[in-house]
Amino acid sequence: MYIGLDVGGYKINGVLMQGNKIVKKRWALNKSTSNRKIIIAQIFDCIEELISGIDSPRFGEAGKKEIKGIGIGVPGPIDFRKQKILNPPNVTGLKNLFLAKIVREKFKIKTKIENDANCFGLAEALLGAGKSKKIVAGLTLGTGVGGFLVVNKKIFRGKLLRATEFGHIAIISGGRKCSCGRSGCLEAYISARGIMKTAQEIGLKKVSSPEEITQMARRGDKKAVEVYQKTGEYLGIGLANIVNILNPDIIVIGGGIANAGKFIFEPARKIMKENILSPLAKNTRLVKAKFGENAGAIGAALLVKFYPQFIHNKG
Amino acid sequence: MYIGLDVGGYKINGVLMQGNKIVKKRWALNKSTSNRKIIIAQIFDCIEELISGIDSPRFGEAGKKEIKGIGIGVPGPIDFRKQKILNPPNVTGLKNLFLAKIVREKFKIKTKIENDANCFGLAEALLGAGKSKKIVAGLTLGTGVGGFLVVNKKIFRGKLLRATEFGHIAIISGGRKCSCGRSGCLEAYISARGIMKTAQEIGLKKVSSPEEITQMARRGDKKAVEVYQKTGEYLGIGLANIVNILNPDIIVIGGGIANAGKFIFEPARKIMKENILSPLAKNTRLVKAKFGENAGAIGAALLVKFYPQFIHNKG
Repeated sequence: MYIGLDVGGYKINGVLMQGNKIVKKRWALNKSTSNRKIIIAQIFDCIEELISGIDSPRFGEAGKKEIKGIGIGVPGPIDFRKQKILNPPNVTGLKNLFLAKIVREKFKIKTKIENDANCFGLAEALLGAGKSKKIVAGLTLGTGVGGFLVVNKKIFRGKLLRATEFGHIAIISGGRKCSCGRSGCLEAYISARGIMKTAQEIGLKKVSSPEEITQMARRGDKKAVEVYQKTGEYLGIGLANIVNILNPDIIVIGGGIANAGKFIFEPARKIMKENILSPLAKNTRLVKAKFGENAGAIGAALLVKFYPQFIHNKG
Repeated sequence: MYIGLDVGGYKINGVLMQGNKIVKKRWALNKSTSNRKIIIAQIFDCIEELISGIDSPRFGEAGKKEIKGIGIGVPGPIDFRKQKILNPPNVTGLKNLFLAKIVREKFKIKTKIENDANCFGLAEALLGAGKSKKIVAGLTLGTGVGGFLVVNKKIFRGKLLRATEFGHIAIISGGRKCSCGRSGCLEAYISARGIMKTAQEIGLKKVSSPEEITQMARRGDKKAVEVYQKTGEYLGIGLANIVNILNPDIIVIGGGIANAGKFIFEPARKIMKENILSPLAKNTRLVKAKFGENAGAIGAALLVKFYPQFIHNKG
């Protein structure tokens, strides 16, 4: 059995997997994103809750020994080889933390950390919407924008593990200021904050979140529909660049904003198609992720199962 | 020994290689780019000239048997699996031609065709500026813009063999019309035609080619320097997108326009660095190709030597 955790800006998801099946789930809202002690305590709690049933007759008497590993997806950049979190913009309390080592020392179970978008990508490429495809690219749309590329079931990382920063493809020269300090990045248009900015520009007032705009669009609110129309068009330009550069089999979109469904997917497909160079590649499939909120945690568990490199196994 | 040919918009380059060494070179200006018979006759002539010495004592008596294969780089898209040229915009006479089959039937030597930018990339990744690097990306700047990505010594092609269309990364929304029909593509700014257009905008009159502008820049002409300054900045935006998506070890720039040297490389490096997300990746190396005009032909020969798949070997 494997444990997978997804530590995000809003909450911590955890799954216990037996083979490719989830046998137990846990989730909790973050009590803090800046206080390191509180975050680590929540991570420990989540793991303990997932393990707690293992000693029960249901899983036999082997107890913790049944858990072959713990995988943890974390937001933002990590030093994969050192298994160290670098500087996650949305969970600042994890900055410069050797999280794998800490968890390993606490539970005496081998542990591995990975960028959360890569975890999401692995879940979708191995078991989800990209199953049995060779080149699977994708984005997670939420507080930030994550990107991944899985080629032949392996995560494509780039030399310095800095590849697939799809959120920072420049799509509008001299456009909106992005959280990274540059202008015109895809993320500045399709992240939660980007969508709220578009809502403001369109004159959609008194809305508090992209989820609320989705609900309004479903009820037929024209301005809400227009917000996702625009967002989908921005997304489509970025996706066309990804296809022109990578020519993947399929592109998988996940994260909370993917729940806008046709309101964002239809304009995205149209603009993507218009901006893909090769007539043959114009039909590249763009799909919603198969796994919902658990994708990151599932991928983190799969990572330990299938990719034993760099697992923290000592101490 | 291997023969490599590079069939371009202006000329045909050919090399005869023994191991990794060029033992003979030939080149000729194209007599036609639209007349199929003339182009094929020129290709046959080039191969015959390269072979002609083989029967001499220098190479022993084995004659043609010494030639293990012929590789041919062709501009524009090909169907790699069928070894068929599709629709090359700059050498229209080759459209829908099974060139590998024709050459194989003429010379009874196994033959393989490949996109010319991929040939260039292979030469640079195996023996040139990207030697011993894992992830080598690059562009050829000439009549058109070609792109390549070589990962672990293998060409990354994408699902439909349509990856690395770096010339068609969208860099300026609503920008110049590109030859592909879309707007704001990198190619519309950094191809020979793009550079001439920039020269026009800047008010540099009575120049006939990018080479002439390079010479003027070397003599200190301010407008000529400005043309490459602008071109380099456009290139830098495209390169930053490539780094944010692929995080390569090195980017290699070839083709005639690379001869503008510092006039294009310095602004390109500056803007590329500014637009790369990861502080670590900001120092991604940008270099000029090692092999000059022979890179494509060398790569075509290497392709036959190292990658025996899809070689036309029957008939």
